[in-house]
Amino acid sequence: MTHVFDEAIAVTALDDGSGFRATTHPAYDNMVGPFGGITAATVVGALRSHPDALGEPLALTINYAAPVANGTWDLRTTIVKTNRTNQHWTFTIEQEGQTVSTGSAVFGVNRDTWSDTEAVRPSAPPPESVPAVDFPDFVAWARNYDKRFVVGGLDAKSDDSTSTLWLRDLPQRPLDYPALTAMADAFFPRVFLRHGTFMPAGTISLTTYFHATPDELAAQGSKPVLATARGARFAGGHFDQYGQLWGDDVLLATTTQLVYFKNPPPRPEPRLTQ
Amino acid sequence: MTHVFDEAIAVTALDDGSGFRATTHPAYDNMVGPFGGITAATVVGALRSHPDALGEPLALTINYAAPVANGTWDLRTTIVKTNRTNQHWTFTIEQEGQTVSTGSAVFGVNRDTWSDTEAVRPSAPPPESVPAVDFPDFVAWARNYDKRFVVGGLDAKSDDSTSTLWLRDLPQRPLDYPALTAMADAFFPRVFLRHGTFMPAGTISLTTYFHATPDELAAQGSKPVLATARGARFAGGHFDQYGQLWGDDVLLATTTQLVYFKNPPPRPEPRLTQ
Repeated sequence: MTHVFDEAIAVTALDDGSGFRATTHPAYDNMVGPFGGITAATVVGALRSHPDALGEPLALTINYAAPVANGTWDLRTTIVKTNRTNQHWTFTIEQEGQTVSTGSAVFGVNRDTWSDTEAVRPSAPPPESVPAVDFPDFVAWARNYDKRFVVGGLDAKSDDSTSTLWLRDLPQRPLDYPALTAMADAFFPRVFLRHGTFMPAGTISLTTYFHATPDELAAQGSKPVLATARGARFAGGHFDQYGQLWGDDVLLATTTQLVYFKNPPPRPEPRLTQ
Repeated sequence: MTHVFDEAIAVTALDDGSGFRATTHPAYDNMVGPFGGITAATVVGALRSHPDALGEPLALTINYAAPVANGTWDLRTTIVKTNRTNQHWTFTIEQEGQTVSTGSAVFGVNRDTWSDTEAVRPSAPPPESVPAVDFPDFVAWARNYDKRFVVGGLDAKSDDSTSTLWLRDLPQRPLDYPALTAMADAFFPRVFLRHGTFMPAGTISLTTYFHATPDELAAQGSKPVLATARGARFAGGHFDQYGQLWGDDVLLATTTQLVYFKNPPPRPEPRLTQ
């Protein structure tokens, strides 16, 4: 049986060789259009399936210029330059002749070099000791994740916008590059946490660096990923966020995004009369 | 008299309206080709000068696919989508018919919203109490910066790849978006600091988010910027870096990059005989 994630990121090659056709999947709906993480994951899966792809994903930037409408979308890909150990791609996502997303990717091969991880994994109790939570029904995509918040859940209000959570595909699914791509966008907007309420907000631009090797992904399997993100500055209708995805002691990916937001709606005035 | 930075980022509009022509400037040479930061700054300056630009830069991603050769280069720009408060751009840098860089930018207008800065400025003694240092002569671009390292200078070797430094254009120049763009790439490769030596290394992809408003840039003027960056994971011939640029207590920009590196050359064997 095909996993719902694989259904959602499935693509077919376009006849003219210019790219791939994808179809939005209702299981990954967000409040407006699809979950941005599933769109990004579809791109990464499609690029990996290209016969001329070199190695594995190293970097992805995707810019959400307009909402993706439910239905099919076309991914047009260009290999700009293939070097000895890395490869530069650009892409657009088009619907009915309009470009709704743009982006770039770098693929590459691992070379045998000195290595070290300086980032420190957030401390967290084991996932089985943290309760799983549901998001509201109108956030359909979140039902495809087992989410266990160590700090900064959707029901919290905090002066610190950090969320740290155990995250796992539901049903369980071995981690791969597309799944990692989607998880890098699975943090709800940091302004929700600062205000303790939903607010209009949406990702404008997302960049993820993939550190995990294929062997590390295989070792991770379907175990939960420890995901953490925090905003640095909120102002003028935008904020940024920096995040990390950890598997055991392996830093699998780092990710950053720029997010649009509006002030929370004013609270209703207290009613003085019945 | 024109500042050398303004000379270096000067562009002329291409006759066919497709973009701009720039010329590399010897004052911003790097070891191979120009300093990546001056290329990125030239792009930001050119996009801002476009008559259809909306607001100010919010995000920039630039991918260095091949070295830029000394001489002229053409920046081809596309406005993909202009929304009510933001605008999406893509661009390429071309030399002799070859694409050497690609990228995307988001511009936008500041809206009046709730604001807060969560990031914490690194502590640093005042710039006048920290000695300015020179980089070796073959790093020409660095001569255009007054550099005062609080931690992690080019002469250091450390298990922590953090560099924190006071950074200022030389001669002094009021800070603007292009200057901020260049400063976001002014950190030498973090592997130098880990190994205490120069190593083959180069930025592959750079993303910067601009938090500073025009008023904040005006308030900053030509005072030194406090710049800090650290690598998270080094492996397989690549590492990432996350950085922040601070002006007084204002977080001006956040920046991240993916960098290619090779192992340091082996040390010469000790000579046992004369």
